[in-house]
Amino acid sequence: MNIALDAMGGDFGPSILVAGAVMALREYGYIKKLYLVGDEPQIKRELQKHKCSDSRVSIVHATQVVDMSDRAWSAVRRKKDSSVSRAVDLVKHGDANAIVSAGHTGAAVAASMIKLRTLEGIDRPGIAAVLPTQSNVFVLVDAGANIDARPEHLLQYAIMGSVYSRHVLGYKNPRVGLISLGEEDVKGTEKTKEVFKMLKKTSLNFRGNIEGRHLFEDPVEVVVCDGFVGNVILKTSESIAVAIFKWLKAELMRSKRRKAGAFLARGAFHAIKDKTNYEYYGGSPLLGVDGICIIAHGASSPLAIKNALRVAAEAIEQQVNPHIVEEVRRYHETTASLEPATALK
Amino acid sequence: MNIALDAMGGDFGPSILVAGAVMALREYGYIKKLYLVGDEPQIKRELQKHKCSDSRVSIVHATQVVDMSDRAWSAVRRKKDSSVSRAVDLVKHGDANAIVSAGHTGAAVAASMIKLRTLEGIDRPGIAAVLPTQSNVFVLVDAGANIDARPEHLLQYAIMGSVYSRHVLGYKNPRVGLISLGEEDVKGTEKTKEVFKMLKKTSLNFRGNIEGRHLFEDPVEVVVCDGFVGNVILKTSESIAVAIFKWLKAELMRSKRRKAGAFLARGAFHAIKDKTNYEYYGGSPLLGVDGICIIAHGASSPLAIKNALRVAAEAIEQQVNPHIVEEVRRYHETTASLEPATALK
Repeated sequence: MNIALDAMGGDFGPSILVAGAVMALREYGYIKKLYLVGDEPQIKRELQKHKCSDSRVSIVHATQVVDMSDRAWSAVRRKKDSSVSRAVDLVKHGDANAIVSAGHTGAAVAASMIKLRTLEGIDRPGIAAVLPTQSNVFVLVDAGANIDARPEHLLQYAIMGSVYSRHVLGYKNPRVGLISLGEEDVKGTEKTKEVFKMLKKTSLNFRGNIEGRHLFEDPVEVVVCDGFVGNVILKTSESIAVAIFKWLKAELMRSKRRKAGAFLARGAFHAIKDKTNYEYYGGSPLLGVDGICIIAHGASSPLAIKNALRVAAEAIEQQVNPHIVEEVRRYHETTASLEPATALK
Repeated sequence: MNIALDAMGGDFGPSILVAGAVMALREYGYIKKLYLVGDEPQIKRELQKHKCSDSRVSIVHATQVVDMSDRAWSAVRRKKDSSVSRAVDLVKHGDANAIVSAGHTGAAVAASMIKLRTLEGIDRPGIAAVLPTQSNVFVLVDAGANIDARPEHLLQYAIMGSVYSRHVLGYKNPRVGLISLGEEDVKGTEKTKEVFKMLKKTSLNFRGNIEGRHLFEDPVEVVVCDGFVGNVILKTSESIAVAIFKWLKAELMRSKRRKAGAFLARGAFHAIKDKTNYEYYGGSPLLGVDGICIIAHGASSPLAIKNALRVAAEAIEQQVNPHIVEEVRRYHETTASLEPATALK
């Protein structure tokens, strides 16, 4: 399988991205070709640093980069030769099976929407972030692709999230929850109340509103919210996990006795740290575009990039898009005939 | 000082609430009178269970309760004799200096707005939740009072949060951050972009957008967002902290070696657990109403209720409202003369 990596995007630039690419090439034999898209001299220099002359690497030169301060849509339209646009082009023209970007999320979403188009029946793509619970995982859609979402977009996220949960995460009949301020039907904003009514009418296993306080207790396998709220949930979860480990470390260093205890119990700390470390999840698929686009964390380490490339390879294997199209069509056929008002366009 | 406790609201009813009240009475000599508002026979029974015949207790009978499934505003208007309404009445008539409620948040907000009114210059109250960082705390406004907030409401939260941070938390020149999806000025929803522009024009120590991922790293002392997002941040933080300790406990129990380590280091775990335990924070003030209203967690334990009563007593001491009125007036005078369009109404 062939993957295109936007080698310029991300908070720390090509050195981290190329380092992650080199790690992935060494570990994943199934990568046939890895396109590194961006400034050729810089990428070459980074490859040399790692003494990497892997024949599977193909550098695709791009003269521009979308900066974090650019506006997503205008940047894609204006910077025709940006690394993210060129990387998406490789997918569009069939050279690559997937793109991975740790750059400007909005730009990756806009480039994918403009060049790959959305799937039939989907108006807006959503980022599907997988998060851990005690014994399982759940998928959160949308984790930040679409921050001014309309109710029908959230309905589409619920459908896409259910398909993802079933076909990728292996849940037979995934439960769907809508993020709100209380569990009762009447709680929420005007928007969530409308989505609630729409979800009630679907054949999805909709369990109603859920609150942030129950998220990590296995209440549902699919969590639906708009991209602003989803991004806040994702980032807050990461942030508090990192903070807790930092605080714990400081407390464990405060006496010899505690230090000894920490040493004996270190396996437990590592296990939990790994569970909550986004570097191991690597990247999240952008569901709803006609192609595969994996969104990695802006602050990705080489390890996170390596894992994002693995996630891309898994997504190429899984081919979830035909299932999404089928499910949306089924929804459309059943619900549209009954309730034209709530049907998808 | 006199405090009114809504003795019926909350997920677990009067048994927990009265138990918390009894704990507070035993510990806090400064409480002169504690009004327990709700069904008299039930409250009496609970007091007897704790063999409490404290003369500072005064039961105020109320025949109705606002259920979690009620709509906030209509419940306050319809259920005239609800415990939360009667408790707010005690503040309105000067019998109590503050109310504490663990019931329906929306109803406590609505009752306070209807009966106590908002402060001069404030359109909507906001819940001020105090959250810990490594070495400090920050205040998050709004943590869930107002879920369909307009830009001017968020501006008011920034002013109220700054006053709270200065006068209650003791920060001299508190930094203010606006929750968004990226740190750059152009990132965010239409609403956050408008708030960003408004905050730029104030004399507040506004530091721009902040992301959830930096929240617990001491970037700012005041975090501004709408009530939906704020509630999600608060609940998600609690949830992930609880989950991490549960996972860690399970991992620590997996071998004798780890168990021994956990025993030696137990002081560190307790310290961090306390830091992240909302029971120790107890309740959050509803800023912006002309009176003192403390919102406690719906799932409050007796310990949390006890601490919410302490928070109420502290709020009575601190008298932050005159400072809010003064600060809003100053904002109004300076900004209104320069930029009528962005002035508060």
